[in-house]
Amino acid sequence: MAKVKKTPRPRAETPKGFRDYFGTDVAERSAMLATIAEVYHRYGFDALETSAVETVEALGKFLPDVDRPNEGVFAWELDDSGWVALRYDLTAPLARVYAQHRNDLPTPYRRYAMGPVWRNEKPGPGRFRQFYQCDADTVGAPSVAADAEICAMLSDTLEAVGIDRGDYVVRVNNRKVLNGVMEVAGLAGDEKEAERGIVLRAIDKLDRLGPDGVRALLGEGRKDDSGDFTEGAGLAREQADVVMGFMEAGRDTGAETVAALRALVAGSAVGTAGVDELETIAALLDAQGYGPDRIVIDPSVVRGLGYYTGPVFEAELTFEILDEKGRPRQFGSVAGGGRYDDLVKRFTGQEVPATGVSIGVDRLLAALRMKGRVAGASHGPVIVTVMDRDRMADYQAMVGELRQAGIRAEVYLGNPKNFGNQLKYADKRGSPVAVIQGGDEADRDVVQLKDLILGAKLAETASLEEWKDRPSQVEVPRGDLVAQVREMLARHGADG
Amino acid sequence: MAKVKKTPRPRAETPKGFRDYFGTDVAERSAMLATIAEVYHRYGFDALETSAVETVEALGKFLPDVDRPNEGVFAWELDDSGWVALRYDLTAPLARVYAQHRNDLPTPYRRYAMGPVWRNEKPGPGRFRQFYQCDADTVGAPSVAADAEICAMLSDTLEAVGIDRGDYVVRVNNRKVLNGVMEVAGLAGDEKEAERGIVLRAIDKLDRLGPDGVRALLGEGRKDDSGDFTEGAGLAREQADVVMGFMEAGRDTGAETVAALRALVAGSAVGTAGVDELETIAALLDAQGYGPDRIVIDPSVVRGLGYYTGPVFEAELTFEILDEKGRPRQFGSVAGGGRYDDLVKRFTGQEVPATGVSIGVDRLLAALRMKGRVAGASHGPVIVTVMDRDRMADYQAMVGELRQAGIRAEVYLGNPKNFGNQLKYADKRGSPVAVIQGGDEADRDVVQLKDLILGAKLAETASLEEWKDRPSQVEVPRGDLVAQVREMLARHGADG
Repeated sequence: MAKVKKTPRPRAETPKGFRDYFGTDVAERSAMLATIAEVYHRYGFDALETSAVETVEALGKFLPDVDRPNEGVFAWELDDSGWVALRYDLTAPLARVYAQHRNDLPTPYRRYAMGPVWRNEKPGPGRFRQFYQCDADTVGAPSVAADAEICAMLSDTLEAVGIDRGDYVVRVNNRKVLNGVMEVAGLAGDEKEAERGIVLRAIDKLDRLGPDGVRALLGEGRKDDSGDFTEGAGLAREQADVVMGFMEAGRDTGAETVAALRALVAGSAVGTAGVDELETIAALLDAQGYGPDRIVIDPSVVRGLGYYTGPVFEAELTFEILDEKGRPRQFGSVAGGGRYDDLVKRFTGQEVPATGVSIGVDRLLAALRMKGRVAGASHGPVIVTVMDRDRMADYQAMVGELRQAGIRAEVYLGNPKNFGNQLKYADKRGSPVAVIQGGDEADRDVVQLKDLILGAKLAETASLEEWKDRPSQVEVPRGDLVAQVREMLARHGADG
Repeated sequence: MAKVKKTPRPRAETPKGFRDYFGTDVAERSAMLATIAEVYHRYGFDALETSAVETVEALGKFLPDVDRPNEGVFAWELDDSGWVALRYDLTAPLARVYAQHRNDLPTPYRRYAMGPVWRNEKPGPGRFRQFYQCDADTVGAPSVAADAEICAMLSDTLEAVGIDRGDYVVRVNNRKVLNGVMEVAGLAGDEKEAERGIVLRAIDKLDRLGPDGVRALLGEGRKDDSGDFTEGAGLAREQADVVMGFMEAGRDTGAETVAALRALVAGSAVGTAGVDELETIAALLDAQGYGPDRIVIDPSVVRGLGYYTGPVFEAELTFEILDEKGRPRQFGSVAGGGRYDDLVKRFTGQEVPATGVSIGVDRLLAALRMKGRVAGASHGPVIVTVMDRDRMADYQAMVGELRQAGIRAEVYLGNPKNFGNQLKYADKRGSPVAVIQGGDEADRDVVQLKDLILGAKLAETASLEEWKDRPSQVEVPRGDLVAQVREMLARHGADG
């Protein structure tokens, strides 16, 4: 007999590199972002939520020179709008919005944005194609007071979400100082562009290669562990000394660091301007009480120096965690930013200065979890069990009273036949208390309250005496339901 | 001389049908959704945030039978995942998630979801291609207690966000009753499918066409104003009477309505089952105190009857607004839902019952705005003006103190040369207070506080005497800055 060919069932899977977030994960992130938004708002920043979809033209980097552009972004063609793509960050949409609405927006325009962005990259462990970003930028303020403000706000934000003072530091550096260093090292001018590129890339590898590795790249070049050779910038020893001196100019106090940098770039106008900016930032922060326990001038901040045009900043968490091999290491960077000058020039031809910061949402949330400082987490609901399906209205009344009192509660809505399944459900839900009322209890106008948290603890550790002393199930008058449940929750530090 | 051809600048525009949300709009929606999430959470619902991108296979409706499917959804092809698309609602992803994770999720699974969805439709006035949905569903609970719970939760939600009792009503109907009506009217059986389709569509047009229009469609057909003729179901008068009787079975009390419906479907097993369900829902709600001032059994609810399989519900706002022609009309529907049974069958072959509700985020927000009940709105920041750019640190210190005290505040970061521009900026920002300190005030250790709200009012209406009596600018000691600003804000009901 021939088999009937069936249509295969669709696979229940996300596309590769995408994932779902459940319950507590969603609530914890929401709570963290709400706290961040509160700080940003207090600083005068306004929310902006742009559309997820932009024209490829407005996004800029990914113009379609082939039939279907999909390098880095998810793009498709629309009959009425041409090629469009999902935003890959929150800065490109800000540029488009500012160019589009610049006559209606205040100048300076302080805005924050939070939401998913999408990258068409090869997914890997921990690398997803959709993830959250959380940015704050000030557009149209040329003064470094705007940069200082962002640093102060970043510090306040970290403390507001639950990172203690002393567990983080905001480091500030300046691209102009590096440009001055390049001048002093004899690397100015168009004809030195290639060397400058190599120097920038070498500096950017300080974290990974250490000073010796960087020095090799500044000089003749470097052979890595695999035997591959990276060509160096070919600097003379004294030239390389200047560049290395820049990265190692950090001193105990901001004033000393500034003095060291000033000496290093003596004779370079741009370098001196950069040092002046760092000095101004330090003074402005000092006037508001942000001392070096929170924000420091630190020439070893190199990330982003290639991209930004003035001050750059980075927030690092300084407490130790264990890496995958069990070795202690610092948690590291959770936010970074800086000043960039060509935000809307592509659209309008005008140069508009901007400075901003982006918080790594997933990394900061991971840090808060390690520190036990996540908000938004919560216990499961109180479960009102169903002993008698004809009395569902009674159980609904109980659950209604609990909810009215602000207590998270549910009636069991599955098949009530097997009571064990109801308790298994309560367990799966992380329920702190089960409410039980059979016919006998109903006749006597009482309910049984089963303390599931205590019950689980007792089951693990208790002696027989303790079981007797601290019964995990109590009978209370029906009228005391809400008060007694509330007391049980309070005992476990769960307030509804 | 030949002109140099320039690369045209990109247009700073969203793609057609997409838009941005600014400041207060974002904050108001966030606040409303946070309140809704709080109610859902109290009812035991867990948050779920699925990826924005799904495989076209999992979404189901839009399988690619052409090279590039773009009917209704935004879709594109990935090398490693095949055709994918942006989600067009929050129910299809729930089906995929439940099928994928059913062994790890509790049963029943109560979940809520909030977020943007995307539709590839022709945009029009007020019709966007990206908009918010806000859903709550209970999966795996066959009992109508789950439906009753959703109705109660919907009622609580509306009151929590700011719709007063009496300004809304949740109406409940049941598809099974309609099926019973079809049986009684002699429209059961496969051979009557075409007629049933016409009847369903006719019922669905009750709002628009009124009873006479529906009756015409149940009978011979109907010619509309343009002269176009829509063919009718060809029912005999007594058959049409039964269908019309269903829609008009609403009585003053739930019990009377149930009795009327019971009489109407007498002899139909499915119809009687539907009436029983309505009766059970009413009893369950009654036991929790949700009387007909909040939730009513109403056979005139026809929206969604074609789609759902059991109870259907709809929340309507009953207060009047003026339509575009200035005529009063009811605000109308802001949420709807019901029971549907084939949520995950496509994936697993198993039938899993589900019931849920979807709130129209934009409509509910519009209603709250009309009622003046939006939360999250806020005044602009206090502006500390810059009279002397060398004393920026002093101004930053002021703004720092204000922020520490929880007061939204900014220092002016634009070019401070023209003081008028600073006040224009404050105006554009909706700032309630400007802080001013020139060299003279600094010497005397005082600041000027300009009450911009009072100033605007006085400018509009005040006589000369009032101007003198209620100066909108006061000088206060520098040390009293925070206290005095707080008092000014309190006077205007703005608390930071």
